[in-house]
Amino acid sequence: MGRRPRPPDFDAREHLLDVAIALFSERGIANTTVAQIAAASGVTSAMVHYWFQTREKLLDAVVEEKLAVAFGAIWAPVDTEHGEPLALTQGIVQRMFDVTEKMPWLPSLWLREIINEGGLLRERAFRHIPLQKVAAFAQNIARSRASGELNPQLEPLLVFNSILALVILPQATAKIWQRVNPGFSFDRATLERHVVGLLMHGMSGKPAQAAAAPARRAKRKTS
Amino acid sequence: MGRRPRPPDFDAREHLLDVAIALFSERGIANTTVAQIAAASGVTSAMVHYWFQTREKLLDAVVEEKLAVAFGAIWAPVDTEHGEPLALTQGIVQRMFDVTEKMPWLPSLWLREIINEGGLLRERAFRHIPLQKVAAFAQNIARSRASGELNPQLEPLLVFNSILALVILPQATAKIWQRVNPGFSFDRATLERHVVGLLMHGMSGKPAQAAAAPARRAKRKTS
Repeated sequence: MGRRPRPPDFDAREHLLDVAIALFSERGIANTTVAQIAAASGVTSAMVHYWFQTREKLLDAVVEEKLAVAFGAIWAPVDTEHGEPLALTQGIVQRMFDVTEKMPWLPSLWLREIINEGGLLRERAFRHIPLQKVAAFAQNIARSRASGELNPQLEPLLVFNSILALVILPQATAKIWQRVNPGFSFDRATLERHVVGLLMHGMSGKPAQAAAAPARRAKRKTS
Repeated sequence: MGRRPRPPDFDAREHLLDVAIALFSERGIANTTVAQIAAASGVTSAMVHYWFQTREKLLDAVVEEKLAVAFGAIWAPVDTEHGEPLALTQGIVQRMFDVTEKMPWLPSLWLREIINEGGLLRERAFRHIPLQKVAAFAQNIARSRASGELNPQLEPLLVFNSILALVILPQATAKIWQRVNPGFSFDRATLERHVVGLLMHGMSGKPAQAAAAPARRAKRKTS
């Protein structure tokens, strides 16, 4: 039994990190104590200190082991030199949904601790935003807009902000949104279809399939 | 001088309320004390208590005298029975921009204290959301979608959420967004053109006017 202590130890650390993140996203970092993390994980506070030393190092681990991985998963495949803007956008949207499906705590944590003024992960998270890729994505859109392939009303530097807003905000505010629309709870497929539909048609200005709907109805009548 | 004490008194109360709101939106309600509000207004804490009695009543005043007015200004003119969905949407977007231009503190306060879990204005603000109008707006969109006039990928119950996300989130996160895109600061006109362009073409799927012609011509040349 003493031969392979690493895997269970690593699991213990990983489990602590997951529990801490869940509490941070539910209550906020400022409202979560090390004692609460320990209690929710079924270990002592000393064990939390053993694995993460200080509260600051625990926050470093959240950002470096989770957020940076999420940012990388979303942005690494983006080929801003050769990709078509609509295909790049659809890829970013799809990977954002993949990431939030694996990390369901991410939207609330993003809202509360990253974009919020005074959010406690803001500076740490900022260092992991792939700024050059974000800028190159905007340039890619600007080129296509300039050559007339995209909706001229688009502001290239605001497109990624709009994607984030459309994909992450509804997930971060799902609870209050369900109170505004009682009985309505959206799943990933519904939100993804809605967001992709808005962005693809909104960015290109190409006709939606809705324009073809009367034709389809006519087909059904004749067949 | 003693004959008309009301106007200056009312101004004093209004000034206190404005100063409190500015601090709440900058630092958060939990991080703002009555003493700080008094100091920033140039009065004593006793004067804040004189006008608002308790901290809870001060928060009531923020919601009833400011937020409820903002919600009303945005939603009151919406005729969900007879309006066309794109015209209704454009009206909502324009009035949101009008409101945030008059109340520049609103986007941060909305992010921090309303949509955030644990936001201290959340329950109070929720009571002033015109739920029936929001639902009727979604029904209006659902009718037009069903008759083939709108992008069939739209989820009617998510449209208002998307409008909020596109209009308010970039304003609430303008500071961090300017760090992501150094040298870029968007004004109302730029953001409004971008958001209206995305929504109008995204919801209808109709071709963007300026983009369509050159793109098609270029294609013809190469093919």
